[in-house]
Amino acid sequence: MTKITTMGEILVEIMAKDVGQSFRQPGVLLGPYASGAPAIFIDQVGKLGCAAGMIGCVGEDDFGHLNTERLQADGVDVSHIAFLPDATTGSAFVTYRADGNRDFVFNIVNSASARLGVEHATPQALADCTHFHVMGSSLFSDGIVAAMKKAVEQVKRQGGTVSFDPNIRKEILRSSAMREALGYFLRHTDIFLPSGNEVTLLVDADTEEAAIPALLALGVQEIVIKRGAGGASYIDKDQRLDVAALAVTEVDPTGAGDCFGGAFVACRKLGLAPAQALQFANAAGALAVTRQGPMEGASTFEQLRAALAPCP
Amino acid sequence: MTKITTMGEILVEIMAKDVGQSFRQPGVLLGPYASGAPAIFIDQVGKLGCAAGMIGCVGEDDFGHLNTERLQADGVDVSHIAFLPDATTGSAFVTYRADGNRDFVFNIVNSASARLGVEHATPQALADCTHFHVMGSSLFSDGIVAAMKKAVEQVKRQGGTVSFDPNIRKEILRSSAMREALGYFLRHTDIFLPSGNEVTLLVDADTEEAAIPALLALGVQEIVIKRGAGGASYIDKDQRLDVAALAVTEVDPTGAGDCFGGAFVACRKLGLAPAQALQFANAAGALAVTRQGPMEGASTFEQLRAALAPCP
Repeated sequence: MTKITTMGEILVEIMAKDVGQSFRQPGVLLGPYASGAPAIFIDQVGKLGCAAGMIGCVGEDDFGHLNTERLQADGVDVSHIAFLPDATTGSAFVTYRADGNRDFVFNIVNSASARLGVEHATPQALADCTHFHVMGSSLFSDGIVAAMKKAVEQVKRQGGTVSFDPNIRKEILRSSAMREALGYFLRHTDIFLPSGNEVTLLVDADTEEAAIPALLALGVQEIVIKRGAGGASYIDKDQRLDVAALAVTEVDPTGAGDCFGGAFVACRKLGLAPAQALQFANAAGALAVTRQGPMEGASTFEQLRAALAPCP
Repeated sequence: MTKITTMGEILVEIMAKDVGQSFRQPGVLLGPYASGAPAIFIDQVGKLGCAAGMIGCVGEDDFGHLNTERLQADGVDVSHIAFLPDATTGSAFVTYRADGNRDFVFNIVNSASARLGVEHATPQALADCTHFHVMGSSLFSDGIVAAMKKAVEQVKRQGGTVSFDPNIRKEILRSSAMREALGYFLRHTDIFLPSGNEVTLLVDADTEEAAIPALLALGVQEIVIKRGAGGASYIDKDQRLDVAALAVTEVDPTGAGDCFGGAFVACRKLGLAPAQALQFANAAGALAVTRQGPMEGASTFEQLRAALAPCP
């Protein structure tokens, strides 16, 4: 039986109410919202009724409970999320600028999420895992990289598959240890889920056209390129599929790529064909941006079907 | 020339908008507000026009800048507040229950404020300090206790005086090292500023009446007991003064004790008699609760005079 597991940061997000609002003075904020890229990914998997599990660390505080209650309500196994009494659940404050860019205040690298290590990637936590997802944003410490490698090795040994969403800031590539780690995950990847120009980031290629054969040569089975409002593409050794983005009113883009990825991987692991998985993932990404809050826009199959075939 | 300096946590506070609001689900929040007990204390000192300085650590983020800009605008020397690039400014989320009690999510012990150590209590940072204030809430790590002792020793060597507001949770007293540290600060205290039953906390006494001679015997010159809506008392070896609380509409009690303390110490160091200092401090505490936000209710002398002698 399929079970998709991921590991990494579990956060709350606090959002400025108004565009252009500064965090250097008091104002109206909205939150806390459940967040963290891998948590959003796995929440979307759970909402599609696919068995799902999350490994991570939160503080013994309301923010930790908010996240685990939410994930559990959406069908995610949270029994391997550790509550750490001496740490605080991570948080991200986000405010949108008028040009659509975002400013953040992060409390992640000193939060409970940063305590994640090899001791959390236990054989028991991954015993029933048939597919493991690696979110690049999670790879911010040596301990987490080691834990993630340990998880990938166990799942591959069990005959499982791996997906990888780079989801990284370019600065991370300046570290040779991090480049090495990202190369390791790419070589173990079955489904690669880059956004836009991330497709060229980890191979010796300047263009998407050059990157694709290089990725396939590394052993990647399926490449799914997320282009936001530009739609998405699916490529394997036999075919290429392109899909246009659904027309939606954007409220909050945070989490859209994670919902896209969770929906694509869940559909494929539930046995849907690539073309169907791409359609559902495309709808999941579109619906995600229509809701305030990073995890609030995760969808059920019923909601995805309604978005793809709206009643006249 | 008088200069009052303090050292300790610098935070932002995020407040739930509604009474009874839970941090386990999204809602409307207000903030970030400048906060941190010693920061509020010294902001009140600065607002009264008394030379003031703060030693502490913030993250290189908007929350750090919010605090330093605010303190500087209110007249506090912020040149010894360190911006740490790899830490996040501390934060406290607070929500009021219907019974008036508060629930918190704290990010302090893993924040920039926790990095404070002896290296920050430099001779230069305290060179012109004539009075040093110790806030008990700041004493949450061995490194901070050591820094605070170093500061007290330098200021005493320079012929300066020390005030001490215990402002501690009872749990902290379970640690024998912490009890020893609190005893050290009490023995070096000239002005002691307990709230209510804190007056008995650090001496071998069960009642206020028994605690006062014990405190005076330790070398404490002036004892000021803050009783919130119950007013305040001043005791030295020669006299006792009592004052009733001013009648105000409470909006947010956070920071009232810190404003009271800052106003009392500033008035005394500016040369006012105990009776006058007690009146002004009492007014500062009262005005503090009328404003939303822990530091927003700090007052100028003009505002304190208006509160004490309102126009008919």
